[in-house]
Amino acid sequence: GRGRGWGHLPRLGARAAAAMSLPPLFLLLLLFLLLGAGGLRAADAMEELATEQEAEESHRQDSVSLLTFILLLTLTILTIWLFKHRRVRFLHETGLAMIYGLIVGVILRYGTPSTSGHDKPFSCSQEDRPFTTLLVNVSGKFFEYTLKGEISPGKIHNVEQNDMLRKVTFDPEVFFNILLPPIIFHAGYSLKKRHFFRNLGSILAYAFLGTAVSCFIIGNLMYGVVKLMKLVGQLSGKFYYTDCLLFGAIISATDPVTVLAIFNELHADVDLYALLFGESVLNDAVAIVLSSSIVAYQPTGENTHAFDAAAFFKSVGVFLGIFSGSFMMGAVTGVVTALISFFFTKLHCFPLLETALFFLMSWSTFLLAEACGFTGVVAVLFCGITQAHYTYNNLSVESRSRTKQLFEVLHFLAENFIFSYMGLALFTFQKHIFSPVFIIGAFVAIFLGRAAHIYPLSFLLNLGRRHKISWNFQHMMMFSGLRGAMAFALAIRDTATYSHQMMFSTTLLIVFFTVWIVGGGTTPMLSWLNIRVGVDPDQDPPPTNDNSERRNRTKQESAWLFRLWYSFDHNYLKPILTHSGPPLTTTLPSWCGLVAHCLTSPQVYDNQEQLREEDSDFILNDGDLTVTYGDTTITANGSSGPHTATTSLDGRRTKSNSEEALERDLGAADHEVTSRGTRLVFPLEDNA
Amino acid sequence: GRGRGWGHLPRLGARAAAAMSLPPLFLLLLLFLLLGAGGLRAADAMEELATEQEAEESHRQDSVSLLTFILLLTLTILTIWLFKHRRVRFLHETGLAMIYGLIVGVILRYGTPSTSGHDKPFSCSQEDRPFTTLLVNVSGKFFEYTLKGEISPGKIHNVEQNDMLRKVTFDPEVFFNILLPPIIFHAGYSLKKRHFFRNLGSILAYAFLGTAVSCFIIGNLMYGVVKLMKLVGQLSGKFYYTDCLLFGAIISATDPVTVLAIFNELHADVDLYALLFGESVLNDAVAIVLSSSIVAYQPTGENTHAFDAAAFFKSVGVFLGIFSGSFMMGAVTGVVTALISFFFTKLHCFPLLETALFFLMSWSTFLLAEACGFTGVVAVLFCGITQAHYTYNNLSVESRSRTKQLFEVLHFLAENFIFSYMGLALFTFQKHIFSPVFIIGAFVAIFLGRAAHIYPLSFLLNLGRRHKISWNFQHMMMFSGLRGAMAFALAIRDTATYSHQMMFSTTLLIVFFTVWIVGGGTTPMLSWLNIRVGVDPDQDPPPTNDNSERRNRTKQESAWLFRLWYSFDHNYLKPILTHSGPPLTTTLPSWCGLVAHCLTSPQVYDNQEQLREEDSDFILNDGDLTVTYGDTTITANGSSGPHTATTSLDGRRTKSNSEEALERDLGAADHEVTSRGTRLVFPLEDNA
Repeated sequence: GRGRGWGHLPRLGARAAAAMSLPPLFLLLLLFLLLGAGGLRAADAMEELATEQEAEESHRQDSVSLLTFILLLTLTILTIWLFKHRRVRFLHETGLAMIYGLIVGVILRYGTPSTSGHDKPFSCSQEDRPFTTLLVNVSGKFFEYTLKGEISPGKIHNVEQNDMLRKVTFDPEVFFNILLPPIIFHAGYSLKKRHFFRNLGSILAYAFLGTAVSCFIIGNLMYGVVKLMKLVGQLSGKFYYTDCLLFGAIISATDPVTVLAIFNELHADVDLYALLFGESVLNDAVAIVLSSSIVAYQPTGENTHAFDAAAFFKSVGVFLGIFSGSFMMGAVTGVVTALISFFFTKLHCFPLLETALFFLMSWSTFLLAEACGFTGVVAVLFCGITQAHYTYNNLSVESRSRTKQLFEVLHFLAENFIFSYMGLALFTFQKHIFSPVFIIGAFVAIFLGRAAHIYPLSFLLNLGRRHKISWNFQHMMMFSGLRGAMAFALAIRDTATYSHQMMFSTTLLIVFFTVWIVGGGTTPMLSWLNIRVGVDPDQDPPPTNDNSERRNRTKQESAWLFRLWYSFDHNYLKPILTHSGPPLTTTLPSWCGLVAHCLTSPQVYDNQEQLREEDSDFILNDGDLTVTYGDTTITANGSSGPHTATTSLDGRRTKSNSEEALERDLGAADHEVTSRGTRLVFPLEDNA
Repeated sequence: GRGRGWGHLPRLGARAAAAMSLPPLFLLLLLFLLLGAGGLRAADAMEELATEQEAEESHRQDSVSLLTFILLLTLTILTIWLFKHRRVRFLHETGLAMIYGLIVGVILRYGTPSTSGHDKPFSCSQEDRPFTTLLVNVSGKFFEYTLKGEISPGKIHNVEQNDMLRKVTFDPEVFFNILLPPIIFHAGYSLKKRHFFRNLGSILAYAFLGTAVSCFIIGNLMYGVVKLMKLVGQLSGKFYYTDCLLFGAIISATDPVTVLAIFNELHADVDLYALLFGESVLNDAVAIVLSSSIVAYQPTGENTHAFDAAAFFKSVGVFLGIFSGSFMMGAVTGVVTALISFFFTKLHCFPLLETALFFLMSWSTFLLAEACGFTGVVAVLFCGITQAHYTYNNLSVESRSRTKQLFEVLHFLAENFIFSYMGLALFTFQKHIFSPVFIIGAFVAIFLGRAAHIYPLSFLLNLGRRHKISWNFQHMMMFSGLRGAMAFALAIRDTATYSHQMMFSTTLLIVFFTVWIVGGGTTPMLSWLNIRVGVDPDQDPPPTNDNSERRNRTKQESAWLFRLWYSFDHNYLKPILTHSGPPLTTTLPSWCGLVAHCLTSPQVYDNQEQLREEDSDFILNDGDLTVTYGDTTITANGSSGPHTATTSLDGRRTKSNSEEALERDLGAADHEVTSRGTRLVFPLEDNA
């Protein structure tokens, strides 16, 4: 049967060729033709009932559905190119992917004929529970069926009426196991920024406290909305308090991908960038663990409305357990990868193996965590951070660029795939429940939740921060609370019940609205809020007058925990896990000299200078930790110190004076400001 | 429920950490523990019947099954590293992947408890035909089931008794739509070799005629075996003549990946390499189309044994139609990509977009062909060849290395995944039918089929070839007829009937045997057959005495078709599709000067020198086609000629004399032999 249909289809191929050489719009046309043809052919095939042909038809539809997404992505890329070329900033690639997805979704929904696999709802009663596999006897032949899920009784008559719609609907597992890991890993891998660590305290506060606050406020507000809906009679299914909280957790995962892209392009204020990026990366992790804990909150007895202290504390325990467990697992796998790349040094000769190994280890972290009941997203995030910090230093130069580029491409494809799928899902997903009251309530709730998250926390943080978070920064953070891939992935994970379906539909609309409207408004907003653009990322905030006073304060007050960790990491972990850093023989006390000698890689002595510049985002030079170790390490630093200025290939000024270096790292050094960025059209104002 | 089980699992994480820093064997241990734990937990969970928990369990199992494969690959990579490090050549990475797959398969099969989703075979009769979707009413709740396939009545009681076995069994669509494209595309992309084009005629003969001969001989021999089995009473199901032919087509797809890897490593004779590689790449395409045509061979009436001339010619038509259609589609998409990269020149500024686009266009070729009823493998193969020839020249330098590396990694991962899956499938696939007579018959048949393919064809080809294919080369080709990924993918595609199941099991064993035994025997065989190793790929066969005579013959006899195509491609296609090659204004006749001027990219004049060296595998310098155009092109060549020697960055000698260059391209030039390869342990003998 494979040969059927090839006779009349070269036309289509030729048409494709003609279409693709013309602007992207024609590609869209091809897509429609293809989908139309797929639908028509599916209708033809239903006449012949042979199983083999049905299998082949199914194969063809699989191809068409995958092809649909690939052409959508191609289309998005070509249009992005046009946008980038013309410096269009009001619409980001993800927003574009959604629009194309929407268009194709409409076509699929209304353009293709209904080709239902079951003409009438067939039902035969079983006794007690659904089997995962079913054997059905059809006139002597046995057929195997697998369980797909429960269907609410009202929906029986319009289940899967269109084969094509069914084919383009992916298993949510695909999002979780295949598409999310590269996105999250890439985020973790990119976190290796000096400015991130400088603002670590605030970022952690925003991510943990802020997300929890946002989750509970949104949850409670939505519970009010649900109560109201029940009063008005707009609610036709069950909607518990835990469902509302779950919605709060789902929708608290911010994803300001559009805002960050513009920040990146305009070189907006680095501290604001670090705050936003750090918060969004970590709050994904918090939101996903929160939602797991809320699902785990099962009060004893039937009344799920009542507050049950035992269940609540169990949920808190679950949260802490999952989070710390996943964190540990991610960190441990990261360290293990570092050790593998440390010991298998000859892997350098085979960059392909090195890259493949790196990729597989990262992915396996995610899956291992999921398989053990932890949260893969959290694990892979911290695995990414650890690998960027340690493993990266052990890779060969070729592997570094390879892994970076591989993850970049995977991240790009996965992200745009998810967003175009979102556009598609608005029309192809068959169980939408759009409730105007709920949707309006949700928009109000996320606004209030974001406000209650940003302003009070910023106030509290400003009490302790040297560089205050200005009002304009707070407004910008408030504004940048977009929802994206993570909220969608969390919402689509379980759409079995009435409440989950309503939550899914609402989440979808919130993502659309925020990505388009808020994303499009970023550039005007930046200008309106007088946020600095064209900032050199390596440049520090402009110096104020009281230099000497500040310098003194730095040593006493700021980030003692960070300082402690920094020295521990630099003196012990780095030398053990990577071929960089000072030799252990110099950092360990003299009485463990033998152990130190065994653990120190012979390459350390050679590589000390060579690896410095890649690592300089975080550790600026080898001498910078003499603050804590004083004169005991003077020999090691003395030997490497003079080299620093010459080996920094990227032209950054590095300082041999160790105290100043650490201070600069913590944002307090007072060297001259040499802004290399151009200050763009926006009025400049120093908000620091 | 997500929180369940996290309490006792950090142990496992820590164990993983400990295990992975030690040699690979411990990683295997971890795998067992994990699988064991997964199985046990699955057994626990069956107590609680809540659907939510079952879904979560299912998610966990999905993770475990993916993780199994990823850890298998990791294990393989680490072991390969050991092997490469110690220069072990008796076992290739694919063979290794299979062994690990086998071990894990045994564990899965016998080590995990049986956790059947359906305790008793449940059946309820429908009227006429199986629906694709089934709604089942279980005590008031409706559940949706999807059709998986037909089950032979004898197998009802052991269908899917183990959840874990079911989870690690992938949909054959995954192989076809996800794993095969990168492998085939990479093969096509790597075909851009001078030696391939020099042996094009022989390669095409081997691939087309040879595969057809092999298919029919194996098919007929197997029909004899099947007849014999029927006589002896060993056959318990239907086995038609077309099934035998299909088996012939499936098993005719050779995949000498192991042999080629060793050839590559030892720098064995380049012509032999080109013959083997070219044959294996193209014969995959031929085999897959052959098998489609055989499936399409459906004689009218019920008697499928009888020969039906109409059906036969229909099959031949199908073969030609599918092949040429797929070929066209691949070439067209390749050209379209070239045009896109040609027109969207500013894509250079965004190498990420460029790489993603390149990747998506390649994949969409495959899917588009499949969706249209053509053969994706053939399309993507020729798309790869076309893109290597044209699009590659339009890419930015960064994108070139990016795409190359991306496809390299994808190819590597996909190939090893397929081979480890094969190992796994020997134990986890539930419908194996091992028939000793059939298996022995098949081994004899593939041996005879390969012999009937290589020796007579080589004899015929030698009548026309200048460089004869020596006996030793023929023996090596005979020996290198391994079966691999493509045979497996073809065999697993349809395992619904008795005959297909038997064919699948036999194919699996043939792949195992040939990859291990034949792959392991390559190095001794090379030595035994006195095949040259340590050959510089850029070096030509040693000169013989009659230089002037040969040079004269070259011009008259050799490859006039190739020569014609070469000049057409170089003078017209290259300038239109890429930014390299001579400007059209110089190659077109003067009366179409305006058209030529419009079609010529302004960059051509600038890029002429810049792009030469990357392209030199095939086109050595711009001057080499003056053979056909003589003095009319002297201006263009004159301007670029003197640069050639200085711009060849890779240190290869390029000749400014155009005649000599083309001759060298066709393997007849007589410049001095400067062998840069070391001649290894093997005795050297000149077989040319």
